[in-house]
This record gives sequence, C-alpha cells and structure tokens, in this order.
Amino acid sequence: MSDTNIRALVFDVFGTVVDWRTSISRQAAEFGSKHGVEADWDQFADDWRAGYGAGMAKVNSGEVEWKIVDQIHRERLDVLLGQYKFPSIDEAELVEFNKSWHRLDGWSDSTGGLTRLKSKYIIASLSNGNVALLTNMAKYANLPWDAVLSAELAGKYKTHPRAYQKTAELLGLEYDQVMLVAAHNGDLRGAINAGLRAALVTRPDEYGGAKPPDLEPESDFDYFAKDFNDLANQLGCD
Amino acid sequence: MSDTNIRALVFDVFGTVVDWRTSISRQAAEFGSKHGVEADWDQFADDWRAGYGAGMAKVNSGEVEWKIVDQIHRERLDVLLGQYKFPSIDEAELVEFNKSWHRLDGWSDSTGGLTRLKSKYIIASLSNGNVALLTNMAKYANLPWDAVLSAELAGKYKTHPRAYQKTAELLGLEYDQVMLVAAHNGDLRGAINAGLRAALVTRPDEYGGAKPPDLEPESDFDYFAKDFNDLANQLGCD
Repeated sequence: MSDTNIRALVFDVFGTVVDWRTSISRQAAEFGSKHGVEADWDQFADDWRAGYGAGMAKVNSGEVEWKIVDQIHRERLDVLLGQYKFPSIDEAELVEFNKSWHRLDGWSDSTGGLTRLKSKYIIASLSNGNVALLTNMAKYANLPWDAVLSAELAGKYKTHPRAYQKTAELLGLEYDQVMLVAAHNGDLRGAINAGLRAALVTRPDEYGGAKPPDLEPESDFDYFAKDFNDLANQLGCD
Repeated sequence: MSDTNIRALVFDVFGTVVDWRTSISRQAAEFGSKHGVEADWDQFADDWRAGYGAGMAKVNSGEVEWKIVDQIHRERLDVLLGQYKFPSIDEAELVEFNKSWHRLDGWSDSTGGLTRLKSKYIIASLSNGNVALLTNMAKYANLPWDAVLSAELAGKYKTHPRAYQKTAELLGLEYDQVMLVAAHNGDLRGAINAGLRAALVTRPDEYGGAKPPDLEPESDFDYFAKDFNDLANQLGCD
C-alpha cells in the first residue's frame, strides 16, 4: 500500500509502546516487600491504573484545573497506600515510587520497530503522560523518538480533539499528514474525529487477562497491524 | 569538578549546535543559481538572520501576537527577495526554501559530543526555533535529543525568564537542576537570571568574521568549554 501523504507517526504510549502492567506490578512487588506488605501486585497495578481515566476526565470536563499525569498517579497512590495497609513512608521515597511510571519496559518489538519506522517518518509520542514522564521513559526503555510530545502541551487530554490537533500543529503538519498508532479503538476514534489518520496495533498481553484487549478495529482505520514490525512492513520501511 | 545536582543539559541550537551561517549560505547560493541571481550569499545569510532578533523582540514586548520562528524567517525572506531582486517564485518553492533553517549542519563535535553528554544527563534543545523546525533539524543533523523543547512551548522567547523556566518545568526539574549550554553570553545571562545554571561553549566560526564571537564568559558561569567534548570531559562523561 502506498501512502505518500503521511509524514509523521505519533504513538499512544501506555499499552501501545510499553507494558505498563508488568512493569508496575514488578516495581510494586519490590516496594511492598521492602515495607512488609503482601498483595496481588498485578491487581495493585490495575488499581493504580484505574485512577488514570477518572483523573483525566475531571480535567477535560473542567471540574478541576489542569494537572499532569504524575500528579494524577500520586493522588491515586495515596489512596491505594491506605487500602493496601502500607505503613507510613517518607515523602522522598513516595516521590520515587510514583516515578515507577517513568520506568516502564517496551514491548519486545518497540525499540526495533520504532527505529525502522523512524527511517521513513517523524516519530513522536502522543501520550497523556507528561513530558517529564515520557522523556525519562524514553531514556529508560530506549525509545528513539524524534520528539516527545504530550497532551500536556495542549492542556487537554486525549480523546479531546485538541490533544491530537496541537501535536500536528507543533510538528508543522496538516492533521491528515499525521497518523496515530495505538492499541486502543477509543483513542484511534479520537484521532479520526480530530482529522488525523489512525493505525491499530494489537497488544494482546496489555491487560494480562484482567480485561479484553482491542484485537480488531472497531472503525474504518487506515492500518491494522499485529505489532510495530508488521506496521513497518505495511508502510514499506526497511 | 563534581556536580551531582545537574540533571538536564538544555542547549541553545543556532550557532551553539549547528552552523547556521555556512548552511544557509550554501542553500541560498543554490537557490540563487536556480533563479539567476548572483550575490554574496554569506551576506544573504547574515541579512536573513538579522530579522530574527527583531522579530522575536516584537513578540516578547507584546507589540505583536505570538508567531513561530518559521513565520519570522518567512517575513524576513519576503523582504530579502525584493532587495536581492529575485524574480517571482511560486509559493510552494518559497515554503521549501524557508525550511532551509530546518536543514542546518551540526558542528563537527555536535553529534558525538551530545551522545557522550546524553549518557549521563537528559539532553534537550532549548531554542527559540519552533518545535517543527527543531524536530526536522534533529533528523537532518543527527542530533540525539532526549526531548525537543522550545521557547514555543512557553509562548515567550529567550531571554525572557519564562522560556527557560518552562523548559525546566516540562522536564519535572528544579530550575537549578538544569544547565543551559550556549555559545552566547546574553543567552547564558538569561538562564542565570531565570534560576538555571550556565555553560559557555565557544563557537569561534559562527559568524565567519562578520562579527566577533563570544570567546570568554562575561559573567560567572558554571562551566566554560571549548566544545561539547571538552564539556563532556569536564562533566565526567565517558
């Protein structure tokens, strides 16, 4: 398939590029062990993640002022520490544990596939994660972004259209010259609604069985690939 | 010298990382040749660059609304095309020529020196150039930024304090955990004034003799290096 109009690929990150659940579960298990707490740490990861959508929804609705995802993660963590009966922990250590979200492992094809895609397109993050989180994660997981872009720069979280449109504007491109790559139908519909193009990449292990992943496109997206190498093949990258 | 507090190095780009004058002169000579115009193309490069400071000053003073550097470059180019007696040229070609500023060559130590510094610090651009310009330039000149940051994200041009401070905030760092690296005393004083740290790196060939470069620190900056490798040595990078 020839597609000469696309100039940039922008990527959802949590779940699409990095395996947040396994990475958080592992770090939480270490943290729990240090503080004498036993728990189902996969469940802890899911519980921590569960604060994310609700926190962003309050921002987009205007119910609360803009807050970055680090702050949303921290507020949720403070609730979970009580629920999981952690002892009192000093602030510096909590700040560091909250940054577990800056240390997420890529899927096995992430670095290699992104590098292939980078040979032909501008590649950038387009995550709700804040710039600091994404910058630290890129260093940790060896993600070769041309630019670290974020909903933070729009002041609106995905799936608000401005999150997608601001990213295209910062890249100096028309909306339809930019394609979102994501493992989530809802995010991709948000991109289409904003005038961008869309590619579904499946990540069957994202939720580890806790809930079903998106394995089929629910709308008429531009591409559908099983991973980044498959997408690179379809886009004619070396 | 041990300096454990610094977490990120942010870089002025035009002149500090890339040789804008030689790169613009070369592209302008090709453009002139195509359109049958003869001129001193080093002078043309200097004349084009001369619109930059004045254009930004009008933004920071509030005299005009925010405009990106691509637009400032274009407005200046439109004046120069008349002064240099270019014939009528179609718009698409002018858009492309204006992007000469996206295609600037790094100094000989830029890619290698940045790569060394990246092994120990977050490295990011902190240029008045817009994000699209800097992203395209990084691809063109192989600049291994962890993040492409710009005064565009602050809505104020350097040397306004917000340009520096917003960059540190986006990186999630305290101002004094971030050091500006630049070849220009004025920019470095702006960084110090904003609470950042400062390193002067000399670029004796930036102006090609048209005006004197800054070869000595005019204030008490944190570091003074002859190039990026010298800075990497002083900072203990491999």
